[in-house]
Amino acid sequence: MEIKLKVWLEQEGEVVAGDGKVRLLKLIERHGSIQKAAQENGMSYRHAWGAIRKMEMRSGLKLVETQAGGRAGGGARLTAPGRDFVACYGRFSDGLEEIIQKKFQETFREQKVTNAGKS
Amino acid sequence: MEIKLKVWLEQEGEVVAGDGKVRLLKLIERHGSIQKAAQENGMSYRHAWGAIRKMEMRSGLKLVETQAGGRAGGGARLTAPGRDFVACYGRFSDGLEEIIQKKFQETFREQKVTNAGKS
Repeated sequence: MEIKLKVWLEQEGEVVAGDGKVRLLKLIERHGSIQKAAQENGMSYRHAWGAIRKMEMRSGLKLVETQAGGRAGGGARLTAPGRDFVACYGRFSDGLEEIIQKKFQETFREQKVTNAGKS
Repeated sequence: MEIKLKVWLEQEGEVVAGDGKVRLLKLIERHGSIQKAAQENGMSYRHAWGAIRKMEMRSGLKLVETQAGGRAGGGARLTAPGRDFVACYGRFSDGLEEIIQKKFQETFREQKVTNAGKS
């Protein structure tokens, strides 16, 4: 058997973000475009935009700023709070999987349950 | 904002158990009855029985044994591997929430993001 883990942020009972939405923010920063970020994250532009709006409303943070038109033909980037948010989440996530796996191995190994069911 | 966590066990991509199913096993041990355990866990007897069968098939462990009839009018209890499984899961879960919350506070507090959005 193996242990699986899911973490996400909530504000007053509503989901703000988990790995998927933070990945979307990172992709916006990388590509400078919500369209390209959405595409790489396997979602529609409309879905991505809705997700960003919900994240912003629920967190109370302005995370993404857009520029319409201009030489670059418009674009998007993370605000300072947006970059902080992604950085915090990254530091939180870093090593979390390893902590969980270690605790799982330590607590389940004793009883030889971890490999039961595998022939 | 606050961090939320979900953990569960899988065997070859199939869910074996999480907090809910382990709670069901504990209730079977406490009540000596699948019927009473299911009721306290807010599920039907049929659903509970199906959940137990899936846990056993996927883990490769016989977890629950039943006695039909007799003076006690039948009943159910955990097998030795069933008790081990519950004990392992309990040791794994113990303190996990605290570890996650601590890591969250440490990584998010710096940026003052944790209380954003609360007026």
